[in-house]
Amino acid sequence: MTPTDPEPEGPRPPARRRPGGRTARIRRQVLDAVLAELGEHGYDGLTTDAVAARAGVHRTTVYRRWRDVGGLLADVHDAAGDDDWQPPETGSLEGDLAALNQEIQTALTARPPIMTALIAASFRSEKAAQAQQRLWEDRYARCETIVSRAVRRGELPPHTDARRLLIAATAPLYHQLVLLRMTPDPRLPGRAARTAALAAAAGAFAEPPSADDA
Amino acid sequence: MTPTDPEPEGPRPPARRRPGGRTARIRRQVLDAVLAELGEHGYDGLTTDAVAARAGVHRTTVYRRWRDVGGLLADVHDAAGDDDWQPPETGSLEGDLAALNQEIQTALTARPPIMTALIAASFRSEKAAQAQQRLWEDRYARCETIVSRAVRRGELPPHTDARRLLIAATAPLYHQLVLLRMTPDPRLPGRAARTAALAAAAGAFAEPPSADDA
Repeated sequence: MTPTDPEPEGPRPPARRRPGGRTARIRRQVLDAVLAELGEHGYDGLTTDAVAARAGVHRTTVYRRWRDVGGLLADVHDAAGDDDWQPPETGSLEGDLAALNQEIQTALTARPPIMTALIAASFRSEKAAQAQQRLWEDRYARCETIVSRAVRRGELPPHTDARRLLIAATAPLYHQLVLLRMTPDPRLPGRAARTAALAAAAGAFAEPPSADDA
Repeated sequence: MTPTDPEPEGPRPPARRRPGGRTARIRRQVLDAVLAELGEHGYDGLTTDAVAARAGVHRTTVYRRWRDVGGLLADVHDAAGDDDWQPPETGSLEGDLAALNQEIQTALTARPPIMTALIAASFRSEKAAQAQQRLWEDRYARCETIVSRAVRRGELPPHTDARRLLIAATAPLYHQLVLLRMTPDPRLPGRAARTAALAAAAGAFAEPPSADDA
């Protein structure tokens, strides 16, 4: 995201827009409107016209820039990844994973259910699905530092597959809350973290596979 | 399911039908048509009319018995659970979990993608979602025997939380293949099984939590 530009509002030829300033502001207004509409009505209630009306921009602006609902949802994901989020740092592998899982559980159980609505929408729109995958890929890549810190502290074998460990730690959250739709359990983030940390200490994610010291 | 009844086809007053025989046959024809339509066109192409035409039954039959697409999908799940499926038995916890995960991976990567289409549909229809949850609950309940066998063999502490262990073992399959949409990895079923088995041996699923022997 570019910094906010204090340029005054006003009509402007639509064909040439700068990446910052008014364009960035309109993008934020429109994407906020997408999230609000999605939270209130779900995918089926999401239309480019409703988003334009809520954002206070002309429908042709939305159409020209985002084309359709899939384009809007894809940009929501892209904008979400355009931040400086870093995984929690608590001093231990299990602590880091538990704090990460707590963030995931909070997001998956928030009201209105924006994150689950975005996940549901990714089954409807290929553009949204691809953007969702890019965002997850980015988040998991940033989280690999959790594993490299643990290796440096001597908590894990040097050749630990960070991605497999992170997926093992976080998958129960997504599975229980998104697919199985179980009642949220406040113990789940910590338990899933502990399970992954114990498996990691036993060599479950060691590469090459000779490092099996279970 | 009731056994097939060799009663001849033919017109019959619609108001009174026996649970077996022709009624069971029509149910099978209709549910097979739902799966075929879903596999070919996805949820958006699924209509009661198309299902009736494909099954060769009158549209009012479908409407009267299943009401709508959600009712059809819910019955697909209910029929799927009405079988004698039992989890694999290989002689070890890790082997049982790996074989179970192999079944899950095969189902989630099958062509046409019936299972992922059913999961996607559960985000569209509350009736389908509830039936999907009932089916998963039934499957996980049947799988608890994998854990009790391992406890009897002395592979696991006596008070092991079977459900948590089974979710930990299977969640990476669903997360990677359904949500993250990663390319299927033939090593995934075995690796996820091994991770869960190592964590279990380290006491990750022991209840009460005092049994921490990591």
